[in-house]
Amino acid sequence: MVDIEQANATAVERMTSARPILKGVARARDVIPGMRDNLLLHAGPPITWERASGPLRGAVIGALIFEGLAADEAEAEAMVRAGEIALEPCHEHAAVGPMAGIISPSMQVYIVENVTHGNRAFSNLNEGYGKVLRYGAYSPEVLARLRWLNEVLGPVLQEALALSGEGIDLRALLAESLQMGDEGHNRNKAGSVLYTAKLAPWIARTSADKETIAEVLRSLAENALSVLNPVMAACKAMADAAHGVAGSTVMTTMARNGTELGIRVSGLGNRWFTGPAQVPHGLYFPGFTHADANPDIGDSTITETAGIGAFAMAGAPAIVSFVSGTPQDALNTTLEMYEITVAEHPYFKIPALNFRGTPVGVDIRKVVELGILPRINTGIAHRQAGVGQIGAGLALPPMEAFEKALMAYAEEYLS
Amino acid sequence: MVDIEQANATAVERMTSARPILKGVARARDVIPGMRDNLLLHAGPPITWERASGPLRGAVIGALIFEGLAADEAEAEAMVRAGEIALEPCHEHAAVGPMAGIISPSMQVYIVENVTHGNRAFSNLNEGYGKVLRYGAYSPEVLARLRWLNEVLGPVLQEALALSGEGIDLRALLAESLQMGDEGHNRNKAGSVLYTAKLAPWIARTSADKETIAEVLRSLAENALSVLNPVMAACKAMADAAHGVAGSTVMTTMARNGTELGIRVSGLGNRWFTGPAQVPHGLYFPGFTHADANPDIGDSTITETAGIGAFAMAGAPAIVSFVSGTPQDALNTTLEMYEITVAEHPYFKIPALNFRGTPVGVDIRKVVELGILPRINTGIAHRQAGVGQIGAGLALPPMEAFEKALMAYAEEYLS
Repeated sequence: MVDIEQANATAVERMTSARPILKGVARARDVIPGMRDNLLLHAGPPITWERASGPLRGAVIGALIFEGLAADEAEAEAMVRAGEIALEPCHEHAAVGPMAGIISPSMQVYIVENVTHGNRAFSNLNEGYGKVLRYGAYSPEVLARLRWLNEVLGPVLQEALALSGEGIDLRALLAESLQMGDEGHNRNKAGSVLYTAKLAPWIARTSADKETIAEVLRSLAENALSVLNPVMAACKAMADAAHGVAGSTVMTTMARNGTELGIRVSGLGNRWFTGPAQVPHGLYFPGFTHADANPDIGDSTITETAGIGAFAMAGAPAIVSFVSGTPQDALNTTLEMYEITVAEHPYFKIPALNFRGTPVGVDIRKVVELGILPRINTGIAHRQAGVGQIGAGLALPPMEAFEKALMAYAEEYLS
Repeated sequence: MVDIEQANATAVERMTSARPILKGVARARDVIPGMRDNLLLHAGPPITWERASGPLRGAVIGALIFEGLAADEAEAEAMVRAGEIALEPCHEHAAVGPMAGIISPSMQVYIVENVTHGNRAFSNLNEGYGKVLRYGAYSPEVLARLRWLNEVLGPVLQEALALSGEGIDLRALLAESLQMGDEGHNRNKAGSVLYTAKLAPWIARTSADKETIAEVLRSLAENALSVLNPVMAACKAMADAAHGVAGSTVMTTMARNGTELGIRVSGLGNRWFTGPAQVPHGLYFPGFTHADANPDIGDSTITETAGIGAFAMAGAPAIVSFVSGTPQDALNTTLEMYEITVAEHPYFKIPALNFRGTPVGVDIRKVVELGILPRINTGIAHRQAGVGQIGAGLALPPMEAFEKALMAYAEEYLS
């Protein structure tokens, strides 16, 4: 008879004792396991082109043009439909990407190492706000920005991280930023300036010319999401450390591809349990409404999976001006998440809750039994390819995914 | 008959509409009004050497050695006792300094301009933690650090601010940092990294060599108080804008010299109203106790005067791990300050209080009538010269100062 409580305690202990360090930046094809020239990684569970939503399609098109594999939209689409390009989840390659989450072979990616357990995780570089590939935009300025990230920002970051010797302790950075009004998913203002400030002396020492150094510093400092991707990779490294504990009902993946949301569970191997992705509710930029919104998309729910994001909202009351609601709602969200989690995080503390640790380790049994779904803070993409972000808000995963997972668990362990 | 409510509304409107911009860095003797070669500015109300506390004496000694005016402690003390060196309050020269607050003629100082009303304010450069002049230490490493600030950091900051063109909007920076867990007096973690991140691109473009640039960036980024002095000068610029409104009972200065605390009132000219400075209560570094503590010292209460610091603690719950108490105490402190203030700040908002503005503009009538004293968050200095900081905590001003001011007000306006 499997001791579920013990298995879950083991899983969550592995998740919270993981210490993710940002070690460097390199080309995806050189470091991501299983990456190959005709492969694009995407957010969420597996998806085909036929079932892919607008923003995911837009990002696939943009990435193929960026790679020089397609000249335009039509050519890109034809290549994917013909099977010349494979689409696979980031999550199956130790990687995560925000929104569409497309990582192509030439892209520079962050390398994060969990020095406690030795596993690594990867994420792409953050493009900032406005028209960006991750929201499905692929105009010439989007591609020009991607090239700058790849040819200037990435190499400077790699040199700076190498000069730093030890890299950047992302668990420590997150612990600090969670005491500075961030929740680590949609609000990363403090984390991004901490990240900039910690790297700045090393960036200044790189071989780049002063104007490039200044531009890199400005880019990191003015982008309130610059640390999001390293944070996501850190959460992925923590969640992966908790995966594969026999008998555990702890959720170790929750991700959306814009059509479906999928979860994976520590004790259930690499199977995905999916359901339809919901359209988020939130605040829209001028000129857009709920009717324009794509269903929930992105791997950024790796933050909630690791006990931050919406789970840490009690410490980030200012976020409600971005995702809607009141500071009291933010507090209540965190309090509710204690109901469906296994532990309180030993490193991520919320001052407003008397320094209580964030709720961490979603137990799929509790989700189904209590009917309480994990909360998600998210950006909202336009449903058509090529448009981009139109707002930010709150979303819920489909209960169906948790029910399927629980049935699979019963079959595997209890029959 | 004077309309006190109207006068106070005018004063506080001037305080909150002031927009302080950090414009540059220059030598005190070149920019501070009334600065002269044999003058040292100090924190708090006027004080003589004979009545000065240990840390203030230590800082005077250190500044005279730093200036090359004295070779050692004995010579420095003899010069001051002989009247060769004058001591005057920073506050009487549009300046403020933390703790002992000594500003000597050669020191580089921040220049902050209130672009709404045109007045300027000044503060020295922050030395960081450990053995520092502002806590009365003057060992060779303290003086070496002061020289580095003066000869390297100051000129690089001046060049960077000139390159930036517009300087740094400190009101905007404060508004942002108050939503990131700072209260702006004892907790300036967010503000200091924001300050570093905003300046970094301009620092990178200065004529300094890369190693110097890297060292300046490291120094600013690692000092969680690097923005304290610009913030204090910003608060001074705001408070001075509110000074001199006939009939107003709004407090525009509150400062301590380590022996006495003094206040000044908008409608009562430049008179100081004083009482004995209290010994703060708080948390002590290992090896020190309350018995080692000097009475309250420093101009940093200009933050509380301008509606931040202890007045904004509700938004900075993490500060209790530094100054003692619980997050609930922090919340209650801000709520209590609404009882004795005239307005809610239109720019400084607290998310945890549903984005309510901080309490701003202490009305000395309310202080005396309600018996509620303004709260102060403060660092704690050792009572002997040469030791330095031994803790941090909470303090109260003496009611006597407010009673004296109210009596003076009655004589001037109501007789």
